Amino acid sequence: VSSAASSSLAGQPTVAWADAAVVIIDQTALPGTERLLRLTTVREVIDAVQRLAVRGAPAIGVAGAFGVALAARGPAGSFAAAVEALRIARPTAVNLARAVDRAASQFPAGPGAVLAEAERIAAEEVASSDAMARLGAALVIELCGDRARLLTHCNTGALATVTGGTALAVVFALHATGRLGGVVASETRPLLQGARLTAWELGRAGVPFRLAADGAGPFLMARGEIDAVILGADRVCANGDVVNKIGTYSHALGAARAGIPFLVVAPESTVDPDTATGADVVIEDRDPAEVTGFGGIAVAPAGTPVANPAFDVTPHDLVTAIVTDRRVIRLSIGQSMAAVPLGAT
Amino acid sequence: VSSAASSSLAGQPTVAWADAAVVIIDQTALPGTERLLRLTTVREVIDAVQRLAVRGAPAIGVAGAFGVALAARGPAGSFAAAVEALRIARPTAVNLARAVDRAASQFPAGPGAVLAEAERIAAEEVASSDAMARLGAALVIELCGDRARLLTHCNTGALATVTGGTALAVVFALHATGRLGGVVASETRPLLQGARLTAWELGRAGVPFRLAADGAGPFLMARGEIDAVILGADRVCANGDVVNKIGTYSHALGAARAGIPFLVVAPESTVDPDTATGADVVIEDRDPAEVTGFGGIAVAPAGTPVANPAFDVTPHDLVTAIVTDRRVIRLSIGQSMAAVPLGAT
Repeated sequence: VSSAASSSLAGQPTVAWADAAVVIIDQTALPGTERLLRLTTVREVIDAVQRLAVRGAPAIGVAGAFGVALAARGPAGSFAAAVEALRIARPTAVNLARAVDRAASQFPAGPGAVLAEAERIAAEEVASSDAMARLGAALVIELCGDRARLLTHCNTGALATVTGGTALAVVFALHATGRLGGVVASETRPLLQGARLTAWELGRAGVPFRLAADGAGPFLMARGEIDAVILGADRVCANGDVVNKIGTYSHALGAARAGIPFLVVAPESTVDPDTATGADVVIEDRDPAEVTGFGGIAVAPAGTPVANPAFDVTPHDLVTAIVTDRRVIRLSIGQSMAAVPLGAT
Repeated sequence: VSSAASSSLAGQPTVAWADAAVVIIDQTALPGTERLLRLTTVREVIDAVQRLAVRGAPAIGVAGAFGVALAARGPAGSFAAAVEALRIARPTAVNLARAVDRAASQFPAGPGAVLAEAERIAAEEVASSDAMARLGAALVIELCGDRARLLTHCNTGALATVTGGTALAVVFALHATGRLGGVVASETRPLLQGARLTAWELGRAGVPFRLAADGAGPFLMARGEIDAVILGADRVCANGDVVNKIGTYSHALGAARAGIPFLVVAPESTVDPDTATGADVVIEDRDPAEVTGFGGIAVAPAGTPVANPAFDVTPHDLVTAIVTDRRVIRLSIGQSMAAVPLGAT
C-alpha cells in the first residue's frame, strides 16, 4: 500500500482504478486526515475491505471488482484462489460476491476485459446513485411534505458508493432543491461512521444537521423532532427484511412507535432474492476491540468480553418502503419485493 | 479538591463523610485510575456533580446532603444560597432536591444535626439497595426462571448509590446465589458509563458478562439472547413513565417487541408523585463535546452541531414492573403507582 496526503478530496471517487492500482479514499483516516491509498495487490484490497478503509456495500463491490482486475494481471494459476478470497472478504453484503463474480466472468477474454467489466460496475453504481436520489426525494416529499427532518444511520453517502450515495444521496437531492428541513446523523457505534464520515460529508455539503448518540434516535422521534428515518442496507432479503448496520433495528422500532416512515434506500445490487429472510443471513461478529475502545483509546477495563454483531435485521413489517435505483417497493401497503417489477415507482 | 490515588477501592463507599469533607470515588477516572476526591466546599461538590465525578440519582442525593453539611459549617448568611445552588446542580433526578431539602431542614438545630441527617440519608440508601436486591431477584426468578440472561444500561451499581446499587444490586444478588445466566452491559454513549463503570463492577465481582454497543441491545433481544432488561431510573413519574439515561427507551422498545420483561429498579426516593408524566420532566441537554468525542479524543469534524439529551422517557405501557426498596408495581398487569401501597410485593 502506498498512501498520499491529499489537500482536497473534492471530486475524488471513493474507489477508482488508476495506473494499475485500485485507488481508494482511506476512510479509517477521516475526518482528521484526507488521504488516498493505492492498492496494488489482491491481498491489499482484501485487507482494505476488512479494515473498513473502504466500506459501504456498493463501494465494497466496486473495490472487489477492481481487485479481480488486479488478479487478472497476475499469474493465471492463482486467479481462482484470488477471486475466492475477494468474494468472502466480508460476509454480509451480497454486492461483493456478485461484483467479484461478474468481473471474474470476463477472465477468459483477458485482463483488459476484466478491468472493463469492473469499470462498468463502477459506472453503474454512479448512475444508480442518481436514480435513488431522484426516486427517494420524490417519496420523502410525498410522505412527509416539504422540508422533512430526517434521521439517518451509519454512512450512506459518496463514501459508501463511488460518488453520490444511497440514502444520503436522497438527503443531498432534497437539500439541493431547498426541500430539506434538516438531518440527525446517528453516530453509529462502534466504528462511528456517522460521526466520522456522515458528519464530514454533510458539513462539506452545507446540509443543516445534528449529530446524536445512537440511543438518542428513538427518543428524538418520540419528541416529534424527526419526520422520517432514511438509511441504507447491506442486504435486502426476498421477504423485505433489511440487513444493515447494527443500530438500524432500534431506529425502526422508534419510527414505528412514533408513526413516522422508515425508508430504506439501496441499489438493486443489494437485493437478494436467494436469501429468503433476515434469519438466513450470516451476521458478522467483529473484533471486541471495536467496542472496548473509542477512537483508538481503551475505555473498558482490559479483557472485557464483548458482543459485537456488525449488522442487525429489521423485519419487513417495520419498513415503510424500500427505494432502489429501479423501483420503489411500498411494504407498508402490502407490496412485496417479488411483486414489484423493475421500473415501478 | 484534593485527590489521592488509591491502590484499592474495595469496601470504599461511593460517597462518604470523613474529616470535614465529602469523599467520593472519582468516576471520571475509572476504570483506568482508582482515585478518591476530597471535596471541602459547596462549590467543589456542585462541580463534582456537574462533571459526573459522582453520578447516579441516589449517589447524587447523598452527595448533595453532605454538601449541605459543608454549607452548615460556613457563614449562616450564605447558607440559603448554597442550598439552592446544590438543589439545582442537576435538574433531572428528584433525589437531589429532596435530599438537599431534608438535610437543610435540620439547619436550625446546628451543623451537627445537618450532618447527622445527611448520614441518615446515606444509611437509608444502603438499606434501600439491600431491599431492592431482594425484591428484584425474586421478581426476575418469578418472571424468567433460573439463570436469566439480563441486559442492563448505564451504571446502576455501587457507583450509582453508596454501596450495592439498584438494578445491578439485583444482578449481584442473583449471581451470589448461582441463579444468574449472564449479563449484557450496554456501553451507554455518550459517557460510556456501561463500558467504564458497569464493566468494571461486573468484572471485579466475577459476574459473567459481555459489553455491547447501545444499538446492539434490541437485536440481541430479537435473536433470543436476552431474557429480561433490568435497569434504573432517574425519576419515576406518577403515571409510571420512567425517566432514565438516554438509550433506555430503545431497549424498552426492543424488549416489548421481543416479548421479554422490562424491569426498572429504583428507590422510592426517585418516585415523584408530583410529576404527572414524563412529558413534564425537564430533560437536560448536555455538552456537545460529549458526543463529538470521548476522553479528549475528537472523532467528529470540528464544529459539528449536536443533539445531546442526557435522558429519555420510557412510556409506562412499555414497563413490565417497577421495583423499589418498598414495593413492586406491576404495570403490565394494570397496577398503577398510586394504587400499590408501600410494603406490597
